[in-house]
Amino acid sequence: MFGFVSSTAGVAAAVWTLRRGHSHGACWSHGRAQLGAMTLVPWARRQRARLEVDAAEAGLSATQGAARRWVMSDAQAPAAHSAVGGSVKVGAPDAAQDNGSKRMRVRRILEADEAILGTHVKVNGWVRTVRDQKQFAFINVNDGSNVTGIQIVVPSEKLQGYAELMKQLSTGCSVAVLGTVVESPGKGQKYEIRADDVILLGGADASFPLQKKRHGLEFLRTIAHLRPRTNSIGAAMRVRSAMAQAIHAFFAQRDFVYLHTPILTSSDCEGAGEMFRVTSLLPEGVKGSELPLKDDKSGEVEFKKDFFGKSSFLTVSGQLGGEVYASALTDIYTFGPTFRAENSNTTRHLAEFWMIEPEMAFVDLSDVMENAEAMIKYVLQHLRSECGSDLEFFDQYVQKGLLEKLDLCLREPFGRISYTDAIEELNKAVKEKNIKFEFGAPVWGSDLQTEHERYLAEKLFQKPVFVYDYPSEIKAFYMKFNDHDDGRTVSATDLLVPGIGELIGGSAREHRLEVLKAKMKDFGLDEAAYWWYLDLRRYGTVKHGGYGLGFERFVQFCTGMENIRDVIPFPRYPGQCEF
Amino acid sequence: MFGFVSSTAGVAAAVWTLRRGHSHGACWSHGRAQLGAMTLVPWARRQRARLEVDAAEAGLSATQGAARRWVMSDAQAPAAHSAVGGSVKVGAPDAAQDNGSKRMRVRRILEADEAILGTHVKVNGWVRTVRDQKQFAFINVNDGSNVTGIQIVVPSEKLQGYAELMKQLSTGCSVAVLGTVVESPGKGQKYEIRADDVILLGGADASFPLQKKRHGLEFLRTIAHLRPRTNSIGAAMRVRSAMAQAIHAFFAQRDFVYLHTPILTSSDCEGAGEMFRVTSLLPEGVKGSELPLKDDKSGEVEFKKDFFGKSSFLTVSGQLGGEVYASALTDIYTFGPTFRAENSNTTRHLAEFWMIEPEMAFVDLSDVMENAEAMIKYVLQHLRSECGSDLEFFDQYVQKGLLEKLDLCLREPFGRISYTDAIEELNKAVKEKNIKFEFGAPVWGSDLQTEHERYLAEKLFQKPVFVYDYPSEIKAFYMKFNDHDDGRTVSATDLLVPGIGELIGGSAREHRLEVLKAKMKDFGLDEAAYWWYLDLRRYGTVKHGGYGLGFERFVQFCTGMENIRDVIPFPRYPGQCEF
Repeated sequence: MFGFVSSTAGVAAAVWTLRRGHSHGACWSHGRAQLGAMTLVPWARRQRARLEVDAAEAGLSATQGAARRWVMSDAQAPAAHSAVGGSVKVGAPDAAQDNGSKRMRVRRILEADEAILGTHVKVNGWVRTVRDQKQFAFINVNDGSNVTGIQIVVPSEKLQGYAELMKQLSTGCSVAVLGTVVESPGKGQKYEIRADDVILLGGADASFPLQKKRHGLEFLRTIAHLRPRTNSIGAAMRVRSAMAQAIHAFFAQRDFVYLHTPILTSSDCEGAGEMFRVTSLLPEGVKGSELPLKDDKSGEVEFKKDFFGKSSFLTVSGQLGGEVYASALTDIYTFGPTFRAENSNTTRHLAEFWMIEPEMAFVDLSDVMENAEAMIKYVLQHLRSECGSDLEFFDQYVQKGLLEKLDLCLREPFGRISYTDAIEELNKAVKEKNIKFEFGAPVWGSDLQTEHERYLAEKLFQKPVFVYDYPSEIKAFYMKFNDHDDGRTVSATDLLVPGIGELIGGSAREHRLEVLKAKMKDFGLDEAAYWWYLDLRRYGTVKHGGYGLGFERFVQFCTGMENIRDVIPFPRYPGQCEF
Repeated sequence: MFGFVSSTAGVAAAVWTLRRGHSHGACWSHGRAQLGAMTLVPWARRQRARLEVDAAEAGLSATQGAARRWVMSDAQAPAAHSAVGGSVKVGAPDAAQDNGSKRMRVRRILEADEAILGTHVKVNGWVRTVRDQKQFAFINVNDGSNVTGIQIVVPSEKLQGYAELMKQLSTGCSVAVLGTVVESPGKGQKYEIRADDVILLGGADASFPLQKKRHGLEFLRTIAHLRPRTNSIGAAMRVRSAMAQAIHAFFAQRDFVYLHTPILTSSDCEGAGEMFRVTSLLPEGVKGSELPLKDDKSGEVEFKKDFFGKSSFLTVSGQLGGEVYASALTDIYTFGPTFRAENSNTTRHLAEFWMIEPEMAFVDLSDVMENAEAMIKYVLQHLRSECGSDLEFFDQYVQKGLLEKLDLCLREPFGRISYTDAIEELNKAVKEKNIKFEFGAPVWGSDLQTEHERYLAEKLFQKPVFVYDYPSEIKAFYMKFNDHDDGRTVSATDLLVPGIGELIGGSAREHRLEVLKAKMKDFGLDEAAYWWYLDLRRYGTVKHGGYGLGFERFVQFCTGMENIRDVIPFPRYPGQCEF
């Protein structure tokens, strides 16, 4: 039944091999001596210890040149292979190989110190460009570890089958390159690789959609499965990943527990509607007439028959669950997906996005702001040290002045202004500074419009600014009344940042049982549905608070990417659930 | 409208104050001298620098004793307050406070070296027990940072209102304690706190469900909002969090990009059904007759009218999206929620659970196994160093021998056995070792039953074991045919661990376009729906592979908790979507 496999084995691999003078032994010991003096980051140090080079790549048979193999051992090497042998039976056909550690990432080569010069390395990646010149070919290979990739120099005379290689190699192909790290005479990058072998792993014909030219981001969204192979999306995803890592590290350092609040929920945190329903009542091909209906002849669908015995939805926030755990573990944070079934087609909205929601016990609003500011600065600091070349790419091609903006944000204390003072400033701006707002000067008690928020962050403060103590009427039910004005305002804050608008919304939570019950009544919420939320105020209640950070907006801020759809791997918005 | 707030201010705070002889000044300098010599972890070092003690806690007015305030400054302190001041307007009513850093976590006190003796600290937490003895009261306060909490010693004679305090203080109350760290004469913990002030923040009457006794885990699930205040659930969540942090650190060290694959999907990775539908077609109160139907008079619901213009579901795996990004960035991993609409009521299944899914390019199955083994060991190592007392708690009260099990798992290389050899071993066990299986000895080509898996992991290997090279027929369509047996088996592996069974499932993916297309045809899958997945094989295809780890099962393994519902904050299963 499956006998066809070996005979139709997909892409054929081709290996072009240098006619070299030196022996493998010499090559090996040279490489090893160099490695001994190398100072690499820990990752690279572990890698080199197990560096093995195997030209019989990808399980495909070589059509040209002999498959060759260097094995580089190292006294400091962890016993990589001893871990492979089981105690009773051993013998996966290739269990003795350690392919995962054979290749070296491009970024680590380019960031290594000069001791790497002369060592033999293997690089795997995808071809971005090929330039065939007289004596040499120049191939740019990118493995997704950085934005530049690495230049491979292929000497035409020495490589068997050079002409054949040039015919087959094109943008989009995957390759393995074996060669020596040498200084790069060109500007822009320190090192390049002088190739001994170039192995074509997977071809890419002229139909490959990402030929060498700039593609619009909108077009790239239609090929979301290939766009990570572009500079901008690759860089955005590396930055996104580094930011996520920094966020976890920040909270771990402060002893916060990372909490997975549920995605499926029967409660609506914001009381806002706009939730996706999750159901087992609609299998593919179901007829409208087959839905279970209520007994009361209303004709309404009976959700008690659904999977959870009641209506269930995708969460819009993990906050309420976060409050539960903060009321036991003191400091927690969530980092997970949240959902809005809003029909918004903007550059700032997604149906599915990720949120970070810290919740802290025994704190007030000033602590919430302190934590948010420290967190953002921690992430920016991490990006500056870990994603330098990606940020430079964005600064150069996506948003001029990005680096300056981020550095200012790192350097300066964030602004802080009360809502009441902000209203005053906005009115002053209209009257005294001749600023024009489409919606005019705001009156106390109304929501700030985007133009107002932008004026505050971009003009008045020219940096991120916390606006705090909002009118109670325009904020959520769970926010704590301020005592100093008899509950006219709540202990809530929004962080406004230049170019983005609202990045964070936070508050102290109402922790007084009777006050909260009265508020819920005012908001028309059913006490019974929140019995467990109220229990937190019944038993050992404490002041607590937290905030929500929309992760994608933060990535937008750090990359300068205009459309939120381009900073998430596979964006979801009305009409779009492909890939 | 909101004028009632200040007059009905919930719980009244009571402050009991020591009649102390020494002045605040003396107390302050003593504390400071001690702090100067302290060696704490970085977190604690930052904390103490900004240690401020404010007895006017929780925004509630004190009813007894004077609110007092120490401010401890420090030459090494970061400019905490400079960050608070905005450049244009400053003046949140309590912006000058830094409450978030005032309190010290119990765990950090208990783990500090002896230089902490004699220092004044503030602890916030919840009362577990109160023992009122003649001259002293002993209060155990737990802030969720460890399992033991800390003992507070309250000298009866010196505290104003001692009798009143004893009347009000009970299990479940929240408190702030100000006092001095002293050596603990009792066994079990190094330090205790001799209280100067005990401030009752939030009361808890006799209806508090977690009175001092052991509660069944099943009962605790009915109060999932209070159960984090128990030893077992608190410890499970700390261990869970530490494991998640370790997983992120492991992959970051190896230069993997952390990827957020979408939760909402229109494709079914496993081809298995059992997916939850996500829809906007069923608002609350909708009538069965109101659903949009297809034009063809079939009476079937028309999902083209839904939010995404087609059917959408909750993901069962991020793998396909992971393959997309591995085909550009080389090494990625996901860590996110996944869903099964299975009607399973077992101790091993949840409707919503978290998965870790690494995907690596340029690797084969042995690399997949190497990565999985290294990852698990990394996490165990991290737990041993970070969660010692929690693990000891589980070892003592939940699963005897847990620590030994984990250490063995850390020490020993995991076993490796091919499926074919495993079948042979299982048949040998029946014939030669007189082992009885309910389902008998398995025949080649059939799935292993749980009893078979347990025999392999618990009896034959007595440690985690990878079974690899499964028959093609019983594995998913995307798995790579093995060349060495003409596709009779696929490059797939399951990691079986003692007490849990399958913890990890992984494979090399079929990267050869023609082979994959033929397989999809055999599996009855529609090529058109997977156009983008096939494109990965059309353009620069590479060998790649990865695995999926069910996070909750891993937490079960590390804690010994029997029921998967007790290692996730709010479990979701048929009929349960509360909280």
